[in-house]
Amino acid sequence: MLLFVSITVSATERWDIFEIELKGPKTENPFTEIWVQAEFQFKNFRYHVDGFYDGDQTYKIRFMPEHVGKWTYVIKSNSPEMNGKTGKFRCTPATPNNHGPVSVRDTFHFKYADGAPFYVLGTTAYAWVHQKEERIKETLNTLEQEAFNKIRMTVMPKYYGRYVSNEPDLYPFEGSLESGWDRTRFNVEFFRHLEKQVGELRKRSVEADIIIFHPYDKDSWGFSKGTVEENVFYLKYLVARLASYRNVWWSMANEYDVMHKPESEWETYFKELVANDPYQHLKSIHNGKSWYNHSNPWITHLSVQTPYLEKTQTWRETYHKPVVNDEFVYEGNVPFDWGNLTPEETVNRFWTIYCRGGYASHGETYVHPENILWWAKGGKLYGKSPKRLRFLAQIMKAAPEKGLTPIHTQWNKETYLYKEQDYFLFYYGNSQQASARLKLAKDKKYSVEIIDAWNMTVEKLEDEYSGTVEIPLPQQRPYMAVRAIAK
Amino acid sequence: MLLFVSITVSATERWDIFEIELKGPKTENPFTEIWVQAEFQFKNFRYHVDGFYDGDQTYKIRFMPEHVGKWTYVIKSNSPEMNGKTGKFRCTPATPNNHGPVSVRDTFHFKYADGAPFYVLGTTAYAWVHQKEERIKETLNTLEQEAFNKIRMTVMPKYYGRYVSNEPDLYPFEGSLESGWDRTRFNVEFFRHLEKQVGELRKRSVEADIIIFHPYDKDSWGFSKGTVEENVFYLKYLVARLASYRNVWWSMANEYDVMHKPESEWETYFKELVANDPYQHLKSIHNGKSWYNHSNPWITHLSVQTPYLEKTQTWRETYHKPVVNDEFVYEGNVPFDWGNLTPEETVNRFWTIYCRGGYASHGETYVHPENILWWAKGGKLYGKSPKRLRFLAQIMKAAPEKGLTPIHTQWNKETYLYKEQDYFLFYYGNSQQASARLKLAKDKKYSVEIIDAWNMTVEKLEDEYSGTVEIPLPQQRPYMAVRAIAK
Repeated sequence: MLLFVSITVSATERWDIFEIELKGPKTENPFTEIWVQAEFQFKNFRYHVDGFYDGDQTYKIRFMPEHVGKWTYVIKSNSPEMNGKTGKFRCTPATPNNHGPVSVRDTFHFKYADGAPFYVLGTTAYAWVHQKEERIKETLNTLEQEAFNKIRMTVMPKYYGRYVSNEPDLYPFEGSLESGWDRTRFNVEFFRHLEKQVGELRKRSVEADIIIFHPYDKDSWGFSKGTVEENVFYLKYLVARLASYRNVWWSMANEYDVMHKPESEWETYFKELVANDPYQHLKSIHNGKSWYNHSNPWITHLSVQTPYLEKTQTWRETYHKPVVNDEFVYEGNVPFDWGNLTPEETVNRFWTIYCRGGYASHGETYVHPENILWWAKGGKLYGKSPKRLRFLAQIMKAAPEKGLTPIHTQWNKETYLYKEQDYFLFYYGNSQQASARLKLAKDKKYSVEIIDAWNMTVEKLEDEYSGTVEIPLPQQRPYMAVRAIAK
Repeated sequence: MLLFVSITVSATERWDIFEIELKGPKTENPFTEIWVQAEFQFKNFRYHVDGFYDGDQTYKIRFMPEHVGKWTYVIKSNSPEMNGKTGKFRCTPATPNNHGPVSVRDTFHFKYADGAPFYVLGTTAYAWVHQKEERIKETLNTLEQEAFNKIRMTVMPKYYGRYVSNEPDLYPFEGSLESGWDRTRFNVEFFRHLEKQVGELRKRSVEADIIIFHPYDKDSWGFSKGTVEENVFYLKYLVARLASYRNVWWSMANEYDVMHKPESEWETYFKELVANDPYQHLKSIHNGKSWYNHSNPWITHLSVQTPYLEKTQTWRETYHKPVVNDEFVYEGNVPFDWGNLTPEETVNRFWTIYCRGGYASHGETYVHPENILWWAKGGKLYGKSPKRLRFLAQIMKAAPEKGLTPIHTQWNKETYLYKEQDYFLFYYGNSQQASARLKLAKDKKYSVEIIDAWNMTVEKLEDEYSGTVEIPLPQQRPYMAVRAIAK
C-alpha cells in the first residue's frame, strides 16, 4: 500500500525533494534483503532512483526533479508489497532562492542549474554534525551571518587528538562501542540527523561538501576500516538518502592517501558513485601529502590541499577542471603548520588563489578554552578573515562572468585576472609597492579603482585611463588590488 | 727585461696576487698578436697562467699561489722578448683576514680554502662599479657597515630603463659611442678600474660574484651582441686579469635566457672558463624565466631566481650542489613584482631559504629621489632588512658546521634545519602559532631558545627539555624561531 505522509505532496518544487514512503515487509535484515527503486519519467527523461530502508518497515525513495511539469513513476522491488506501485506528481517552478544543484561551467568555474554563477567561498567544520544540538545551532547561525557558501563536513565522526575526540550522540551503524558495529545495518537516526543538517544548509544556500571517507578514526570506532564490500554498501546507502539534496557535493575522501588504500579501491568507489547518483553531483577527492590523478573522468573539479598557490594555473592547464584549494592552511594559532595563519595571510591567500584562477576554502583553528575549534566542531568564528572574505565575494560577483583568465606563466610572480581588453583585477599581495603599473589597451578608456583587500575599501579614481599607466598606491600598505574596467 | 715594480715583491702572501710585469714588443694589436703565459711550479704542482696586455707595451701575469713555500716560474710567449724568462718568489702564510678562495664543502655548503666555513649572505648592486667615484666609495662604505659577504655585479655597464641608464666613465672596449667599439682591443683603464673595485671588496672580505654576460644593454653599447669568437676573446681576457683575485666567483650570465643564446653557446663559454681559470673559482649561471640544467659539470652551485622557496630542497636533491637563491624578489617599493617586498618578507624569505638548506642574496629597490637604487647603483641602504640579516648570519655561524639537514618533503609546510639529535632550528615564518611543538630526542637533554628573527632577540629558557615538548610563543608575533641544542 502506498502512503502519502506530509512530506509526500503531489506538487514538488523543481530541485526540491519528492519523497515516496512505502511500507515493506518485516525481514531479518531489510538493509540487505530488500531493494526498492523507482523509475521516474518526464516526457523522454527517465531516472532510476534507489530507495533505502528507514526503519520500522518503512522504505523511502527520494527524488530531485529537474524538469517542471508532470512526472510519473513506477516502483520496482524484490518485495511484492512494493513492486509495481505507480504514482505521479507535479514539479512546479523553483522559488527565488532555489537555484538548483551546482555544476561546472566554462571549464574552470561553477554555476547553479538555473544558470546563475556560483563563486566558491568555502569553509570547513569537519565534525559539526557530530556535536550537541546547541553547538549545531550555533554553527548554522554562524553560517547565516557569514558569506561562506560551501562547507566541508564528514559523514563519519572525527577523531583528531587533542582537538576533537568527543563521542557523537549517534553512530552510523547499529551496534555500540562495547559490542561493535553491524556494518550491514545502518543507524537510521544517525542518517536522519545528518540529512536534517544538510537540509538546514540548503535552506541557507550553503553547499554541503560531504566527505564520504576519512582517516581520522578511533580504534573503538573503526569506521575507516571497512572492507570494499562494506564500504560500497555504505556509499550506496548514503547516496540513496542524500543525493536528492540539491546542495550536495561528494568529496570521496579527506586526505585520501592517509587511508593507504590502493588506487583501484578509490576507482571502485567513484564508479559506484557515478552509477548510483542520478544527478551527477560534483565529485572530488582531497589529498594529504600525495597527489591524486585528477584527470580521471569521475573527478569534476580539484579539491586540493597545498600552500603552494602558484600551482593553481598549472593545474588548470593540466586538468582543464576547476581548481578549489580547500586547504591552503587555516587561520589560527595552533602549533601545527596546517593551522597557524594570520588573518592577513588567510585573506591574502584567498585573493591570490582567486586571481590565479582558482577558488578557496577557509577554516579556523584558534586555540579555544573549551576546545571548540571551528574547523573541527563549528560553533563561533573568532577570526578576522571572514568579513574580508565576504568583501572578496563581492569582488568576484562584480567581475565578468565569462572570459576571465589568470595571467599565466609558471615563473611569473604577478597575480591578476583579466578579460581581454575589458576587465583587469591586479592583486599585489603582501608587497609594499608604491605604485601599480597597468598595461591597459591603448584604444579603450578605463575606469580604475584602488581596492584595499584588508580594509575592504574601493576607491574609484576620477580620471579615465588608457595604455600603460602608473597609479600611485598608499605607502607601505599591503594587500592592495587595482581594478580596471573598460567603459 | 724583467721589471719588478712595487706590486711585484719577492714574497707574496698565500692566496694574494703575485704579479709579473713584462715589457713586450710594440705591435699593431698586442691583444690579438701577442700571447704570454707563465708556468708556475711548486714541488710537483704546476699551474699554467695566461697573461694579458695592459697597455703601453706592458704585459702582466697574475698568479694566486695556493701553497706556502718557494715557487719558480718560466715565461712562454710568441714574443721572443718575453719568452723563456724565469723567476721565483716565496709564498708566505696567509695573514688572519685572508682565508683564501671559497669553494663547495659537504655537497650543499661553502668553505674558504683554509677550511673556515663560508655562509653566503649575498647582496646585489649590478652596476656599482659603473658609477662615479663618490658613489663607489659610498657603496664600499655601506658594505663595510653591513654583514653581506658576496655581491652580484656586472662587468659590462647596465641599462635598465628608468632605474639605470647612465653612461659609465669607462667602456670595456677601445672606441666610442660615436665611432663604435673595437672588440679586439680592450680598454685597459676600464679593467684596471674594475679590478681595483674587486680588490676593494677583497679587503672587506666580500666575494665578488662577477657577472660575465648580461642582457641589459643599450643599442649604443651593443656589449651583449658579441659573436661567439668575440665573447670568448673577452672572457679569456677577463679571466687572465681577474682570476687571481681570491674573492672572485664567476656568474656566467644574469637572466641568461633573456639573451636568447643556444645552450651550446653557453657550453662553449663554460668550457673556456674551465680551461682558463687555473683556480677553478665557483661557477654558476643565473636564470630569468627559463631554467638551466644545473647538473652540467661546470656548474658548482645553483644561483637561481625564484620566489618559490619550497623548491630549495628539491633542487638540493636533484643536483647535489649548493642552492643560492640570488633573487627571491628585492626589498623595495618599485611597481614591479621583482622589487616590491616588505623588509619583513625579505627577512622571512632569507630565514626560510636558510632553513630549507639553501642560501640567499639581498637587493634593495626603494624608489629614490635621485634614482639611486642600491640594486642597480649601490650607494646607501635604506631598508630594514640588512641588520636583521646580520642577525641571521650570527645564527648561521652558531649552527653546527657539519651534518645540518633541512626537513624534506615536497609537500611539507614545515621549515627547519636539524642535525640528528644534536641541533634543531625550527622557523615559523609569518605564522601566528601560539606555541611550538618540538620533537626532540627522548634520551637527550636540550637547552631551548626562542628567537625573534625580526626583533633580533634570543631568549634562553631555563628548563631542560627532552622528547616531544610544547613551548609557548609570544602571542600574535610572527617571524619566530626556536633553537634546541643538545647538552
